[in-house]
Amino acid sequence: MTQKPLYILVHPEDNVAIVVNSGGLPPGTEFECGLVLTDFVPQGHKVALADLEEGASIVRYGQVIGTAARPVQRGAWIEESLVLLPDAPDLDTLPLATAVPPDAPALEGYTFDGYRNPDGTVGTKNVLGISISVQCVAGVMDFAIERIKKDLLPKYPNVDDVVALNHTYGCGVAINAPGAAVPIRTLQNLARNPNLGGAVMVVGLGCEKLQPERLLPAGVEPSIVTLQDERHQGFGDMVASILEMADRRLAQLNERRREICPASDLVVGLQCGGSDAFSGVTANPAVGYAADLLVRAGATVMFSEVTEVRDAIHLLTPRAIDEETGRGLIREMRWYDDYLQVGSADRSANPTPGNKKGGLANVVEKALGSIAKSGTSPIAGVLSPGERATRKGLLYAATPASDFICGTLQLASGCNIEVFTTGRGTPYGLAMAPVIKVATRTELASRWHDLIDVDAGRIATGEATIEDVGWELFRLILEVASGRKQTWADHWGLRNALTLFNPAPVT
Amino acid sequence: MTQKPLYILVHPEDNVAIVVNSGGLPPGTEFECGLVLTDFVPQGHKVALADLEEGASIVRYGQVIGTAARPVQRGAWIEESLVLLPDAPDLDTLPLATAVPPDAPALEGYTFDGYRNPDGTVGTKNVLGISISVQCVAGVMDFAIERIKKDLLPKYPNVDDVVALNHTYGCGVAINAPGAAVPIRTLQNLARNPNLGGAVMVVGLGCEKLQPERLLPAGVEPSIVTLQDERHQGFGDMVASILEMADRRLAQLNERRREICPASDLVVGLQCGGSDAFSGVTANPAVGYAADLLVRAGATVMFSEVTEVRDAIHLLTPRAIDEETGRGLIREMRWYDDYLQVGSADRSANPTPGNKKGGLANVVEKALGSIAKSGTSPIAGVLSPGERATRKGLLYAATPASDFICGTLQLASGCNIEVFTTGRGTPYGLAMAPVIKVATRTELASRWHDLIDVDAGRIATGEATIEDVGWELFRLILEVASGRKQTWADHWGLRNALTLFNPAPVT
Repeated sequence: MTQKPLYILVHPEDNVAIVVNSGGLPPGTEFECGLVLTDFVPQGHKVALADLEEGASIVRYGQVIGTAARPVQRGAWIEESLVLLPDAPDLDTLPLATAVPPDAPALEGYTFDGYRNPDGTVGTKNVLGISISVQCVAGVMDFAIERIKKDLLPKYPNVDDVVALNHTYGCGVAINAPGAAVPIRTLQNLARNPNLGGAVMVVGLGCEKLQPERLLPAGVEPSIVTLQDERHQGFGDMVASILEMADRRLAQLNERRREICPASDLVVGLQCGGSDAFSGVTANPAVGYAADLLVRAGATVMFSEVTEVRDAIHLLTPRAIDEETGRGLIREMRWYDDYLQVGSADRSANPTPGNKKGGLANVVEKALGSIAKSGTSPIAGVLSPGERATRKGLLYAATPASDFICGTLQLASGCNIEVFTTGRGTPYGLAMAPVIKVATRTELASRWHDLIDVDAGRIATGEATIEDVGWELFRLILEVASGRKQTWADHWGLRNALTLFNPAPVT
Repeated sequence: MTQKPLYILVHPEDNVAIVVNSGGLPPGTEFECGLVLTDFVPQGHKVALADLEEGASIVRYGQVIGTAARPVQRGAWIEESLVLLPDAPDLDTLPLATAVPPDAPALEGYTFDGYRNPDGTVGTKNVLGISISVQCVAGVMDFAIERIKKDLLPKYPNVDDVVALNHTYGCGVAINAPGAAVPIRTLQNLARNPNLGGAVMVVGLGCEKLQPERLLPAGVEPSIVTLQDERHQGFGDMVASILEMADRRLAQLNERRREICPASDLVVGLQCGGSDAFSGVTANPAVGYAADLLVRAGATVMFSEVTEVRDAIHLLTPRAIDEETGRGLIREMRWYDDYLQVGSADRSANPTPGNKKGGLANVVEKALGSIAKSGTSPIAGVLSPGERATRKGLLYAATPASDFICGTLQLASGCNIEVFTTGRGTPYGLAMAPVIKVATRTELASRWHDLIDVDAGRIATGEATIEDVGWELFRLILEVASGRKQTWADHWGLRNALTLFNPAPVT
């Protein structure tokens, strides 16, 4: 890494830039352009490029990220308390589909080796997934999964894994409240994730509110084990029933083989977690570049996280493919505004202490960096939380920003692979789909050498361009989707629990 | 079991009774008293003991559980749609501490063998518990726990188990919203559960909203592993740090021995799940009898579940030990009324389809059966969700009715053992405390012979009295708390995940 004092300016109109150097830079440091620091500025934090009056706009990404709480000298550290949070964009006056990007040239000939499912979707893994209708059965499931892994899985070498879709929903919840539609459709659609091969198996209790039948797609032959079934004489019988159901399905899955599939069969979820000020200039733009390549190759790409998009929504509605899609974006923002308000919270609940330590002053700055993941393609569709994607192109899948809820909802929307960017570092992983982790800084990528898959920090130091890392990531997605390369999360078996979004009360 | 037609009448003023016989009874069946059924009546369901006009009160437990939707003939099946839900008791006009039960004679000389902690609490198990500050680290924790169990635990034979206190809170949540106090204090208090021996260890990420320090009690020497700690060169180092922290603590725990403790050191949580119409006449009254014995022996006993108490609150506020405690009960009911209303739900969201199939027409009937668990002692205190118990006697620990949230909150309140009644059957278990499961019906206890610990169904058939089963349960609690008897849930290792109650939004 370079030792030369370096800052990154994103947009010619910006009056702040972020310091690149690991460990930050002391007062007196002089940059090549002649700028001299008047304060210590930590890595990733902002330095003023001009004198700013009290109340002046602070501009990054060519956008106002806040106003100056007090006068600021050129060369000073713009620390968090200096940046007053502006109002969020007004949802009633947003331009709709006014700047739809032209179609980029199609990218032909890119393929991966996947498992084609009867419904036309394609898996990147060959996983036995068993749904549960209620948490009451989760303990029994864990016991059964251990037995399946030990006694059955070794007989079926073509099956990658066995996963219980454990969750904490299904009973003790207000199942008829308006918000209940979200967790219920999430569970229905999780069971249909392409990596589970299309068959739905459910273990239920019997007396729960969410009856197992509600998790079966229409027209599907039921595969249900009910623990309260009177034929079960105790625990041993229950476990035997689950194993029998699993064994039948494992035999089917074992017959499957990977086949060459066009890149258009990919459904890629994009996420960030533990972001810092580099997220918006290294990892996220590189992911955005890869997203554009994927869209050009005909794939489905989802970006998400309402509270990290809300303050940049005025940059997204113009990119909506039509007015209807633009209104869809606004609908999801408004829903979340209301949801937060009912809970006496607002968008300032984001960012985290770590985000701030990493240089992100507020949610506006975070959002501007976050949407870089979406690249430059037209926004072709909007999904409400947990809805299944039904079209290709760049989609906005509305979710909370919580990494685990977002990941769960993207899996429900049909993702067969995920890309996750991180600045502070998180050991994120999912059982149902591979997760490629991209670091925003080389220092993190080096330190977490056995957890981070791609180092986008090279962009900050000039060792690689956004295009370089974008292409690298695009090619890695195809390799991982083909099972030829393994992510670090899959290497260690790191997998966070499914986490449902339930906006309705528990009872 | 008897084949003779049998019904149970709870209170002399009741105009309905429930059918005992397994499989139900056909029309034409004549009971000893001369009552003849005009319909098929399923087991546990109600039969009319008198002709009822439309609008007449339907009375069970001596209380109005609803009004007749249409005229009902003596001998008819009172099916669910016949019972119109009455209004909930008015919270503004409840009698406070007007019928405080007199102190029952103290029960001396009952003891158990427990692990005494430095803070005076007593564990019924000797468990290494490791808290996490955020879900991001849960995957790493699962990996580390597996290693601890395999490589370290065998060296420490006096330690019962190693448990990760995994949860889905800590980041991506509105941590300053009013409702956030509940999950945060729950996590703080879970770490202090008596069965974990008093030391608190936390694994955190680094950038999360809920910083690990918030989980340490005041004055406690910090034991924290932070994954983003710059000394960790990758995943291997993180796991090594966790193992090192665990090893130190395991060595301490291994030195501990059980000692004779008075029964007053028990903190017993009472719960029901998968209830049926027998719950209120067999299992719950037997648990109530045991609760009275425990209170007489000086122990702490908690009953819970707001939505299953709400409709019987007028029977509880008079039993409050003083007006302040009575107002505490009302405060918790009102909080929950508001919480449900904000989410466009109400108390009719409870009961479940299984409850109804088991004969419970509505939440009023369910509540009247549910509160039987509280026995007849004065209500000596009220805890808000997740608060730690600080006094002995019968406490009302306000929680949602969800079995898993209730169990988690009772553990946070300091329970060292739980008693769980079930009519339909649930394989409930917890990692941190033993759970004794009591069946309401002999048929369930026989069928689930390797999951149910106590058969209270013998009360319905006259083979045992409430007193008999109450004493049996009291003695079993002492045996299990001493580690001399194992519950079925512990035998199989059945343990449901901790489930937090978070009334605030996610972000």
